[in-house]
Amino acid sequence: MVYSIGIDIGGTNTRIGVVSSTGAVTALESFSTREYDDGQLYADRIAEVAKQLIENQGTSECLGIGIGAPNGNGLNGTIESPPNLNFKGSTQLVALLKKQIDLPKIELTNDANAAAVGEKLYGAAKNYSDFIMITLGTGLGSGIFVNNKLVLGANGLAGELGHVTVIPGGRLCGFGRQGSLETYCSATGIVRTFFEKIAETGKSTLLDHRSINEITSKMIAHAADAGDEVALATMNLTGDILGKALASFALHTAPAAFFLFGGPVHAGEVLLDPIRKSFSAHIIPTYRDKIEIIESKLPLGDAAILGAAALVC
Amino acid sequence: MVYSIGIDIGGTNTRIGVVSSTGAVTALESFSTREYDDGQLYADRIAEVAKQLIENQGTSECLGIGIGAPNGNGLNGTIESPPNLNFKGSTQLVALLKKQIDLPKIELTNDANAAAVGEKLYGAAKNYSDFIMITLGTGLGSGIFVNNKLVLGANGLAGELGHVTVIPGGRLCGFGRQGSLETYCSATGIVRTFFEKIAETGKSTLLDHRSINEITSKMIAHAADAGDEVALATMNLTGDILGKALASFALHTAPAAFFLFGGPVHAGEVLLDPIRKSFSAHIIPTYRDKIEIIESKLPLGDAAILGAAALVC
Repeated sequence: MVYSIGIDIGGTNTRIGVVSSTGAVTALESFSTREYDDGQLYADRIAEVAKQLIENQGTSECLGIGIGAPNGNGLNGTIESPPNLNFKGSTQLVALLKKQIDLPKIELTNDANAAAVGEKLYGAAKNYSDFIMITLGTGLGSGIFVNNKLVLGANGLAGELGHVTVIPGGRLCGFGRQGSLETYCSATGIVRTFFEKIAETGKSTLLDHRSINEITSKMIAHAADAGDEVALATMNLTGDILGKALASFALHTAPAAFFLFGGPVHAGEVLLDPIRKSFSAHIIPTYRDKIEIIESKLPLGDAAILGAAALVC
Repeated sequence: MVYSIGIDIGGTNTRIGVVSSTGAVTALESFSTREYDDGQLYADRIAEVAKQLIENQGTSECLGIGIGAPNGNGLNGTIESPPNLNFKGSTQLVALLKKQIDLPKIELTNDANAAAVGEKLYGAAKNYSDFIMITLGTGLGSGIFVNNKLVLGANGLAGELGHVTVIPGGRLCGFGRQGSLETYCSATGIVRTFFEKIAETGKSTLLDHRSINEITSKMIAHAADAGDEVALATMNLTGDILGKALASFALHTAPAAFFLFGGPVHAGEVLLDPIRKSFSAHIIPTYRDKIEIIESKLPLGDAAILGAAALVC
């Protein structure tokens, strides 16, 4: 058996999985990322867990270690000033791991870039040479494929579409900028819109018995699917803004498809339908009917690990 | 001597030049594009002029013919529904020319894409593998390089950044869409802004003796350079909008530089300075100080022919 190790670095947990050549996660370990405020110690812990997992696989061949990280730099293998991690500055994670683990490939990139690679290798993007992956999570991430290759950019940090301004003077983001796409259309942004719609309409919703800090975009999507008016208005506004944004994004690299990933997308057409309508209304005539909007085929829970593992396949 | 033929297809004129390997236009012919409403007859005329130019070069080696055209499709060599040309629908220009001219390469692409290739080969982008070319003309065109290659996209029409929405609900464009970048920051958009600023301020300007249909963005830029208040306000608003847009554009392919081309740019810092200020204010922290904004080094008059010729070099 041939396998690779996929590592998903999240603000809360670090998850390290063994991924088979067919894209199945056959073993998984995790530990708290928050415990670490030092890049060296963090790298030591990753190396220790990874080495144990590799040992457990016996004589099977390990292709390498792929890592998806917030602010992961695909060119130089560093994590750069990650806003949600405790170790600050630039951490040379790949170089630190290479000192301890002897494998043909150890690669790192931004988490959404890794998801794009995962979609290409194990998901719905297999037959697409030019596409854009959009992940709706705490932020809105993206990975861009041109000519069958992930775009890294001159700085190694390409594909930060969540920070594109869509509503000038709009909602504040963590950077202090205003009106970024992710403040509206990430999972978190959708929750913000839900509260805005409660305020605007004054109506009761199917989620009124939930506490505020429990509400997720997935719940809102399911409430919309069940006919909840406020939730539907939330999905419609999200779809309207995201569809318009995708129509502008398409003008850069002219992808054949956008793949959308994340909790709110899994509720089905309740979000995809308004996105597609808005996209069609805003795309330029020469591009019309040439670009699909498709739900990701990566499994919600394992996508980050699969994407990371795909980096070294 | 080795040379190539560069063809610049404009709405008014078609210009066909002989371009030396160092990027000098050594011979030039032109004829009216407007006379033709049939793609076949138009291709015949191009073939006739090109063959005569090639014959005139005697035994020198012709590398091929490169063509820059509005709505030129870099994948299949067609001109697709050009809004400013009289022959409608799709014209298979490359296929039509190949029937009449026997050369190793006949290539066609969008005019701004061709300019990007020209900047890379003959201009200021020689040492840049990832950059975006922005041309400010009647429209706002663009060409995107990733990893030393021009991005064509799945549909062959990538890099249409003039149509990106920057002011939701803003100015109308020819497609009936609203708030596109080119309605503000193309040469034409700058002239629109100038009239808006006259209306807003009620002030007199250095250009008051000119008739309305004479005003160009280049004149406005030069008036701004001479201290004209209304022209300065025009340049500042243009720079503000364009700088913000470039800060969003950078988030796609993370270029090392933007190259700006066109009449209003040649006036110098009066436009570049507000663009750079706005860009710095809006770029995300992880990208800061990593991206230059540079004036194109292509000569204004011959850029389109040089860019076209560069396609086959």
